[in-house]
Amino acid sequence: MKFQHLAVLALAGLGASAAFAQAKPEDQIKYRQSAMTVNARSSGALNAMAKGDVAFNKDVAVRHASVIADLSDLPLQAGAFGPGTDKGAPTKADPKVWSEPEKFKAAYDKFTAAAKALPAAAGDVGTLKVALADLGKTCKGCHDDYRMK
Amino acid sequence: MKFQHLAVLALAGLGASAAFAQAKPEDQIKYRQSAMTVNARSSGALNAMAKGDVAFNKDVAVRHASVIADLSDLPLQAGAFGPGTDKGAPTKADPKVWSEPEKFKAAYDKFTAAAKALPAAAGDVGTLKVALADLGKTCKGCHDDYRMK
Repeated sequence: MKFQHLAVLALAGLGASAAFAQAKPEDQIKYRQSAMTVNARSSGALNAMAKGDVAFNKDVAVRHASVIADLSDLPLQAGAFGPGTDKGAPTKADPKVWSEPEKFKAAYDKFTAAAKALPAAAGDVGTLKVALADLGKTCKGCHDDYRMK
Repeated sequence: MKFQHLAVLALAGLGASAAFAQAKPEDQIKYRQSAMTVNARSSGALNAMAKGDVAFNKDVAVRHASVIADLSDLPLQAGAFGPGTDKGAPTKADPKVWSEPEKFKAAYDKFTAAAKALPAAAGDVGTLKVALADLGKTCKGCHDDYRMK
């Protein structure tokens, strides 16, 4: 069953989260949206520095990059895209998340890889810009295909 | 002005967040609630292991502890308890957050200190239990005084 398949793929990463995969759909949806909200705040702060809207500050940049790296894979690993979580609370997650789990995981994993690379690049505004551009592509790639308008 | 005072206290930690302190109240509220939602998930996973409801797994425990440590101080440092964010979206934050900012910050800082100590303790179930008990007291201390029922 494809729903179960995605759960198995996801749970390979964070063993103790089997309990969470059984959490109520609304709680799983709230969790994954919360992680994305925190990520968005930090990516916004980094983009503001990359654009020069806010003065570049190495410590602040590395801190925000670390938050994104730390949170990036949590929604997937924690099984927060579990079976039946295409509804239960307002969500923009596309049904394709569950109908093509391998492709979704591949797109999500690209985001995770770019996010994990961010802290090492964030100490310099030049390398930060490159890493942010990479990250942005992976955000867009996944959102284009797996987040509804 | 006390509102400004809290913002100044908070922003000392994460310089580039001045922009965020000017974010719309509803966005600040959403942000701080999102960070707490992610924390709650990880503290729940750790408590389940400490109680023996879920088998202890060192890697998973350290991962969750790191999430809590990383996110703990973000809402305060990012200025997400900024002026006027006692309303604008449903929130349980008590008005005392803004009327007694030094006391609120002191209670919040206790939570942050306990959270930052968690990863080093999470590798062993015995030390994890002690650290979780310490953390729980700081959660309760702040929630009792600064979160409405």
